[in-house]
Amino acid sequence: MTHSQRRDNVKAQIAAAGLEAMLVTDLINVRYLSGFTGSNGALLVFADDSDGRSPVLATDGRYRTQAAEQAPDVEIAIDRAVGRHLVGRAADAGVGKLGFESNVVTVDGFDALTAELRERQAATELVRAAGTVEALREIKDEGEVALLRLACEAADAALTDLVRRGGLRPGRTEREVSRELEALMLDHGADAISFETIVAAGANSAIPHHRPTDAVLAAGDFVKIDFGALVAGYHSDMTRTFVLGKAADWQMEIYRLVAEAQRAGREALVPGAALRDVDGAARKLIADAGYGEQFGHGLGHGVGLQIHEAPGIGANSAGTLRAGSVVTVEPGVYLPGRGGVRIEDTLVVPTETSATAGHGPQLLTQFPKELTILT
Amino acid sequence: MTHSQRRDNVKAQIAAAGLEAMLVTDLINVRYLSGFTGSNGALLVFADDSDGRSPVLATDGRYRTQAAEQAPDVEIAIDRAVGRHLVGRAADAGVGKLGFESNVVTVDGFDALTAELRERQAATELVRAAGTVEALREIKDEGEVALLRLACEAADAALTDLVRRGGLRPGRTEREVSRELEALMLDHGADAISFETIVAAGANSAIPHHRPTDAVLAAGDFVKIDFGALVAGYHSDMTRTFVLGKAADWQMEIYRLVAEAQRAGREALVPGAALRDVDGAARKLIADAGYGEQFGHGLGHGVGLQIHEAPGIGANSAGTLRAGSVVTVEPGVYLPGRGGVRIEDTLVVPTETSATAGHGPQLLTQFPKELTILT
Repeated sequence: MTHSQRRDNVKAQIAAAGLEAMLVTDLINVRYLSGFTGSNGALLVFADDSDGRSPVLATDGRYRTQAAEQAPDVEIAIDRAVGRHLVGRAADAGVGKLGFESNVVTVDGFDALTAELRERQAATELVRAAGTVEALREIKDEGEVALLRLACEAADAALTDLVRRGGLRPGRTEREVSRELEALMLDHGADAISFETIVAAGANSAIPHHRPTDAVLAAGDFVKIDFGALVAGYHSDMTRTFVLGKAADWQMEIYRLVAEAQRAGREALVPGAALRDVDGAARKLIADAGYGEQFGHGLGHGVGLQIHEAPGIGANSAGTLRAGSVVTVEPGVYLPGRGGVRIEDTLVVPTETSATAGHGPQLLTQFPKELTILT
Repeated sequence: MTHSQRRDNVKAQIAAAGLEAMLVTDLINVRYLSGFTGSNGALLVFADDSDGRSPVLATDGRYRTQAAEQAPDVEIAIDRAVGRHLVGRAADAGVGKLGFESNVVTVDGFDALTAELRERQAATELVRAAGTVEALREIKDEGEVALLRLACEAADAALTDLVRRGGLRPGRTEREVSRELEALMLDHGADAISFETIVAAGANSAIPHHRPTDAVLAAGDFVKIDFGALVAGYHSDMTRTFVLGKAADWQMEIYRLVAEAQRAGREALVPGAALRDVDGAARKLIADAGYGEQFGHGLGHGVGLQIHEAPGIGANSAGTLRAGSVVTVEPGVYLPGRGGVRIEDTLVVPTETSATAGHGPQLLTQFPKELTILT
């Protein structure tokens, strides 16, 4: 889908909401709708772009060349105060109701926008329109799925390489493993890492979001690795848990439980399913086994231009799963002081047709999920 | 300075502003005042903490253990809706005027806070108090300077190592150089990189913020490298520009000009100086030489827990330079299609006493600034 087609979708959304234009200030949303990746920018999109109401991207002088290259099909306006500038443009165009991202604009930022309108004595009204672009981003187009697949492949290849070269062995530190895995992702085509890699050995594996330390991997330890690659702005997200040497009974028990819960979660990825039911499908198995309290986070989340985006899949999530969205499924069981297991994949939710024909979600992270016992 | 002493400074600030308490929601500010580094948290500080009005850190269940470890001297409250929770606590304590970070809280976030107060029929009033903690953070205490020094040392050592091992040579790509430099920073004690490394060769060096590509370094090229290390949350920031082989006259000319301007900027770092005069001291030399249009950004910025923080040092900056702040000085001249030079250091602004005794700013980034001609 082109940026122009994406903007057409926004136009339809805002027209349906009774708005004449939308001020997009979230930088990820600006990127999604225009291609521009600079650190200062905002986009004005009119519901109806006849009459010269064509979209305007505002940025500052540092990005003059870059903006023209990345967003050749929109007008570029150079002004450091990007939001105020575009509100002024909307007022000039006689816009009545102007949507803005109330989940992004700060109280001070809003004061500046209203001051601009007041100074101009404009009749333009700022209307809360949080999440308009985020909702469109939830469903990935073909190009986006292709980039997400590349990101997941880079992560898969890096972990495969790490294991093959004996990177996970007693005596290494969490930091060493993390650094090697990150370097391997870059070797295998990642532009950068997607987020700070989690390598958690032994008792540290019971900490859901552990930062790598100089703790040494020891025989008999769980090693939990949660990591991702970034390709052209798109993130991958995967967690695998290994055992260094022979697994103890308690380790086998929670590994199998989490693996079953993860499978149940993946199988629940059907378009139209209530998000909380997707979470519940996995959570029930864990709770029934008596570990409900040891699974203290949601089942998953959307992945795309952000590592965490809509939809959130948790016990209290409202809404339903949408065909073509890309989400993680990542149950875990964490036993403080002992160790923990999390297994996480990134998957594409099938279309209705595809689901009806019996096809499940498409798995983008393909590294095996059987308990790998490293000797 | 302890976190408790920092909170005492906040108490003094808010008392002076006529506030009874302050809701801190910016995560960097929360870290500065409590030590907590999680991704969800907020802090409530009362102006007067007699009567059981002791500070409260709110976070969610994922961070129960971490918060208790990192912030042992404040009460920890577990609630995912951290802002609403703390506004409720302020209302319970009978706070009248409650400061909040209007530069951080979004319009939707503000709606949630006011909804909480309305539901409780509380008399608490939310008062804009943007930048309260940021202003305190501008002056670094001894512990902070020590960490900034470590970060700068890691960057210095990495660049020294890169040059010594011949890492900057024709035939390598910008990406290769960037990856090696980043790995060397980690080898030399960095916890992580401070921001995406800029390695810009040849004509790319004329782009102020260039992302490394597969462009190949060639003989006669400028190579501009802007990079930093992160140590315990503190950033370093340094730029050096090299020439691969013999420098052409135009290269010598702009290098010398930028080096002179950078020296003038460093010498202007006197406590109490108007920020715009500091910028002007460097800018004047460049403008007088006819390159004013080719220096399109500000002279520098504060560095600390954020890579860019107060004060900004630019042609339009209001305010004055404060003793004990840590700032960059980074003039540049960029000739589109040909190449550019930027030279940047991170420095500590001296105290009044020290300045009066003739001491200049303390240089934290010590890599030489003479034009290094790599052969």
